[in-house]
Amino acid sequence: MERLPGFRDFYPEPLPHADVWSADARRYIFDKWREVTQRYSFREYDGPPLEPLELYTLKSGEEIVGQLYNLTDKGDRAIALRPEMTPTLARMVAAHERNYKKPIKWFTIPQLFRYERQQKGRLREHFQLNADIIGEPDVAADAELIALLIDSLRVFGLTEDDFVIRLSSRNAWSDFYRQDGGTEQNAYAFYQAVDKIERETPDENQKKFKGLGFSYDAVQQFITSGKPTAELDVVLKNLAARGLADFVKVDYGVIRGLAYYTGVVFEAFAKVEDLRAIAGGGRYDNLVKLISGGKVNLPALGFGMGDVVLRELLAARKLFPAFSVNVDVFCVIEDESFRGETLKLIQQLRDKGARVEYSLTPVKPDKQFKRALELNAAFTLKAESGGTARLKNLRTREEMVLPQVDVLQKIFGTRRPESHIDNA
Amino acid sequence: MERLPGFRDFYPEPLPHADVWSADARRYIFDKWREVTQRYSFREYDGPPLEPLELYTLKSGEEIVGQLYNLTDKGDRAIALRPEMTPTLARMVAAHERNYKKPIKWFTIPQLFRYERQQKGRLREHFQLNADIIGEPDVAADAELIALLIDSLRVFGLTEDDFVIRLSSRNAWSDFYRQDGGTEQNAYAFYQAVDKIERETPDENQKKFKGLGFSYDAVQQFITSGKPTAELDVVLKNLAARGLADFVKVDYGVIRGLAYYTGVVFEAFAKVEDLRAIAGGGRYDNLVKLISGGKVNLPALGFGMGDVVLRELLAARKLFPAFSVNVDVFCVIEDESFRGETLKLIQQLRDKGARVEYSLTPVKPDKQFKRALELNAAFTLKAESGGTARLKNLRTREEMVLPQVDVLQKIFGTRRPESHIDNA
Repeated sequence: MERLPGFRDFYPEPLPHADVWSADARRYIFDKWREVTQRYSFREYDGPPLEPLELYTLKSGEEIVGQLYNLTDKGDRAIALRPEMTPTLARMVAAHERNYKKPIKWFTIPQLFRYERQQKGRLREHFQLNADIIGEPDVAADAELIALLIDSLRVFGLTEDDFVIRLSSRNAWSDFYRQDGGTEQNAYAFYQAVDKIERETPDENQKKFKGLGFSYDAVQQFITSGKPTAELDVVLKNLAARGLADFVKVDYGVIRGLAYYTGVVFEAFAKVEDLRAIAGGGRYDNLVKLISGGKVNLPALGFGMGDVVLRELLAARKLFPAFSVNVDVFCVIEDESFRGETLKLIQQLRDKGARVEYSLTPVKPDKQFKRALELNAAFTLKAESGGTARLKNLRTREEMVLPQVDVLQKIFGTRRPESHIDNA
Repeated sequence: MERLPGFRDFYPEPLPHADVWSADARRYIFDKWREVTQRYSFREYDGPPLEPLELYTLKSGEEIVGQLYNLTDKGDRAIALRPEMTPTLARMVAAHERNYKKPIKWFTIPQLFRYERQQKGRLREHFQLNADIIGEPDVAADAELIALLIDSLRVFGLTEDDFVIRLSSRNAWSDFYRQDGGTEQNAYAFYQAVDKIERETPDENQKKFKGLGFSYDAVQQFITSGKPTAELDVVLKNLAARGLADFVKVDYGVIRGLAYYTGVVFEAFAKVEDLRAIAGGGRYDNLVKLISGGKVNLPALGFGMGDVVLRELLAARKLFPAFSVNVDVFCVIEDESFRGETLKLIQQLRDKGARVEYSLTPVKPDKQFKRALELNAAFTLKAESGGTARLKNLRTREEMVLPQVDVLQKIFGTRRPESHIDNA
């Protein structure tokens, strides 16, 4: 029995096979993402992994269906596994925005799904950090969000040598387009052509832009000019004040293909190897209004950062810690008549938050000790006669015999076990 | 635009509406589950939310399809949103068990899905803690798993007054059934009848058991006897050694309906109100062999605990902490000419792990101070002239003016911000 194509199994490390993914690395990434969004005072939300298909076609048109993991449910509803989080967020905010002070600063870590029939061998799901600010029209919010994006990469140890934020503006493009006589009708096709410009041959680009009434050279010139608009200048100065100037550059080669972006847009790119996009986002001031059928009108902006490219980048840069099991105490049972007393000690230790392991069935003492070392145990503990216990600190090699009732005091006086997940 | 029926939106607290769920409460529950499984040295895994339909029909027969959220994908594959985790786990273990020391102790917190057409108004998804031990035939593993189940409830502050583990045995039922002349052919129907005994009228039960060649009275008598088998006696003694005896009672009224259970089975029930099941599990020694097509044969056992009943129980017992935003430092900007210096301080604080909030746009100082209080800020910080800053400790009301370069030292000397998620 095989899993479905394009889906991942997440196993504990060490990984058994190149074909599977690390559950520990996933946990590590999610924990870091939660940590950094907290520093920026973002709060967590989530919605259903399935939504009505209409939520996506309303926003992106019928052509999106070819990329969706869409299905029909038992109630004959047209549904889709969520391909992105923004429509769900807009739906949720539109329903209950009155309850929350503006600006709303929310994040979530959803699993997202795509299914393009012709693209075999590609992943059909990934996880994404989504962070959004809703209800703030000022460009100061754009700077705050971009600072969060930068820190969401810095938190893993990545530096300005590893990635860059390419900063652009739909407003700048819109001005360029209209000044050069572009029509409303062709605007989407023009943005799409700019979005794909780096993936096409010069010949193909020449032809495309000519068809839209533009000179490819003029488009190229505008892209390479890199002259910040007044709006982008505010963002750059804001980020510079934070000491983050080295992480950003104006680059009109980024435009974000989707129809709904309205203002500042940006993408994070890996500087190493093939300059792949790690994250992207921007302003979408009209979307909440669209999704709510005109009832709620709130400006908004956000970004999404996937787990797949990030994981590859962290692996290439050797920035993952070593993942292994860690226990605080391994309880050794040499004489089965002490199993009951040992179980009591185990329970007391676990009640205090210690991570404890032992052998469920009788096993030779040297094998138990070997297992304690494999599990990086800080202590071994062995119940002995007369209500005593032998405690050994495996770091210092210090060993002592003490009354069982004093074990907790001794261990928790020596080393406080952490109660949160650690990845060391 | 509405979400699909049976799905939940998770909002930050305070909740806007009775119709939605708390993202903070969900985070709290997941963190506690992760914490307690770590104490027991379980490691996290996950699989895809979608699996081939066959994975479930193979295990449970075609009749399961009526309860599944099953669909056909674009590749004409019969698929299902996972209704439970055990088949995925068995598939994953069968594929790569050689990589892991036995017993394998793994946990996961998946979202699971059901879709019964006739049951409107019911949830079609929930989250579940799943913990399993694989590769250990000894009943000591059953005791370890049940201890984990008990601690997975105790970790929230629940006590023996709130819940009980009803302990039973498929082996005991199998002996009873065969001794009284039950046929192999009717065995599944008999287990199903026992499973539903508490939900049927006495008349209906009389009729059902008579049809299977059994006296309802004899069945009732066996259930109420509560006499532990030798196997259950070992489990009870093991749990008693841990000091957990008060949380368990033998009760043959529990049998677990599913066909695949083989040994000790158990359910956790709330003692308050309507005695609802919070969790359930047991041994399924043949399932890995079945799923792997006979290639891998490993004994196994596990339990699942859902988030919905647990949440209701914790709410009824008032065991949730107060959820609110908490920031460490709120930066006040009275004079806009200090915004740049303030952004620098904000970045330095966040780089150290502090949770920092400020007003993105100019706002009256008293409103900023009010916001700091709403966010339970520990400090307010204001950049002032000559490179100084005014720092106020909102707990002690202590206020001081110091050089901006000394702010970090002062704050982190006074109070170390926690870098993990806290729920206060």
